[in-house]
Amino acid sequence: MDIKDKNILIIGLGVVGGSYAMALTGAGYKNIYAVNRSEGSIKKALGLGIIKGGSTNVEDFARNADIAVIAVYPTGAEDCARKLGSLMKKGSLVTDVLGIKRYYSQKISAVLPDYIDYVPAHPMAGREKRGLDYASAQVLKGANFIITPIARSTEQGICEVKQLAEDMGFGKIRTLTPDEHDSVIAYTSQLPHALAVSLINSDEEDSNTGDFIGDSFRDLTRIAEINADLWQELFLGNRENLLAAIDMFTDQLSAIRSAIQSEDKESLIKLFEKSSARRHALIKK
Amino acid sequence: MDIKDKNILIIGLGVVGGSYAMALTGAGYKNIYAVNRSEGSIKKALGLGIIKGGSTNVEDFARNADIAVIAVYPTGAEDCARKLGSLMKKGSLVTDVLGIKRYYSQKISAVLPDYIDYVPAHPMAGREKRGLDYASAQVLKGANFIITPIARSTEQGICEVKQLAEDMGFGKIRTLTPDEHDSVIAYTSQLPHALAVSLINSDEEDSNTGDFIGDSFRDLTRIAEINADLWQELFLGNRENLLAAIDMFTDQLSAIRSAIQSEDKESLIKLFEKSSARRHALIKK
Repeated sequence: MDIKDKNILIIGLGVVGGSYAMALTGAGYKNIYAVNRSEGSIKKALGLGIIKGGSTNVEDFARNADIAVIAVYPTGAEDCARKLGSLMKKGSLVTDVLGIKRYYSQKISAVLPDYIDYVPAHPMAGREKRGLDYASAQVLKGANFIITPIARSTEQGICEVKQLAEDMGFGKIRTLTPDEHDSVIAYTSQLPHALAVSLINSDEEDSNTGDFIGDSFRDLTRIAEINADLWQELFLGNRENLLAAIDMFTDQLSAIRSAIQSEDKESLIKLFEKSSARRHALIKK
Repeated sequence: MDIKDKNILIIGLGVVGGSYAMALTGAGYKNIYAVNRSEGSIKKALGLGIIKGGSTNVEDFARNADIAVIAVYPTGAEDCARKLGSLMKKGSLVTDVLGIKRYYSQKISAVLPDYIDYVPAHPMAGREKRGLDYASAQVLKGANFIITPIARSTEQGICEVKQLAEDMGFGKIRTLTPDEHDSVIAYTSQLPHALAVSLINSDEEDSNTGDFIGDSFRDLTRIAEINADLWQELFLGNRENLLAAIDMFTDQLSAIRSAIQSEDKESLIKLFEKSSARRHALIKK
């Protein structure tokens, strides 16, 4: 059976779930269904033609689903998986989009019956805003996609999730263990958010800073407009790794601070040359 | 005399000086001249039609200049001003584009004769790259422009610099004292650069991080590819303010770190809500 003919059920029509529905429909997938807490987004998604059917009740579509995508907030994922586990058929596949993997993959895996395959994944694309109105297939194009298989994940399941990612237009598709993922993501995603929030919060109250900023300040604070509920879950769910990443960063900032304090021009130049070379290499790849 | 007919001499055809030449010519200024250390950029600028004449020798054009723009690196500014001061005519105007004001404005002012007007300014637009090849009139459009008059600056000189900025397409044009400028700029410009450099330098050597980044990491590290020579001058020339800005930032990052450490969900949400409101207000203005 062609994967594009399979019944695919997306749980949660937020930014990521909505973008999946758009991208999969755009890629020629014919049987995309969605379950969402509120009816408004279901109606909107039906109106946009990005799902074939939708419901606020997971029972309406889970029994016939070949693949289910858990696209709810991390703390809602276990409940969602439990319901799917009680309804989905033998040989079906569950994947997810959670931004941290070890903790939640264990939770999800524990409530899914053995006869359901499970392949955790993290699409590295999102928006500051929440909800279907901000979903977009375009935001997935060329973005990085990380698959973090666990012991129970089958080769076939991994291939199917990879296929979904390719068809949605993701760029680099990589495989990591959940632990590797959480460590790297603390550095590449949660740490930058912590920095952006700290930067904008360190301004004085009622200042007219906006009149005196350049592109650099704008770029560095874009993600300071943050979905507070989601990101406290991501920060606390990846606590140890994020603390370590903050400490690594703080060491580097201290090195710059010391060089400024002691007016050490040569050390500053070395730090800048290192960062320039690294950034250049990063973007070339 | 219409300002567009005046003889305007730009010293330094780098990213900023080159962008000035492009934007002023584009705005209908007829007599833009340039002095540059190397002949290559002069020839290129003549070829582009963005200057009427150019030389590696400041004596060739300074005597007839009505307005001179010092667009060299900060540490070269004093020498440049001394030469201009010995050549320029009574009633002429000098302005600059330096990213820090108190220290260098004093240096420049000290070597300019009283009969030359001087109005320091900071166009908040630049590039990570250096040189005329990266100059662009477009990068100035809508950017912030700060004028930092000192005691000797005349009202007429301030008006003329403002006119130049408007004609080049800058957005908000504001006036600050040099001290106010250096304090706010430590926060909005130098601190973000220190953070970007620290972020990318805190990665492990030879990691393949590039495969696991999203837009947030890309945005936050863009300015980590930095002109090392220029930025060590800017950092050390604004030392006290930048140290204070780093310390304010560190306090905020520590607050986030503590909240993560103690798994304090409510504090995290409050910090995120504060940053979201601030960022939202910043961009709306």
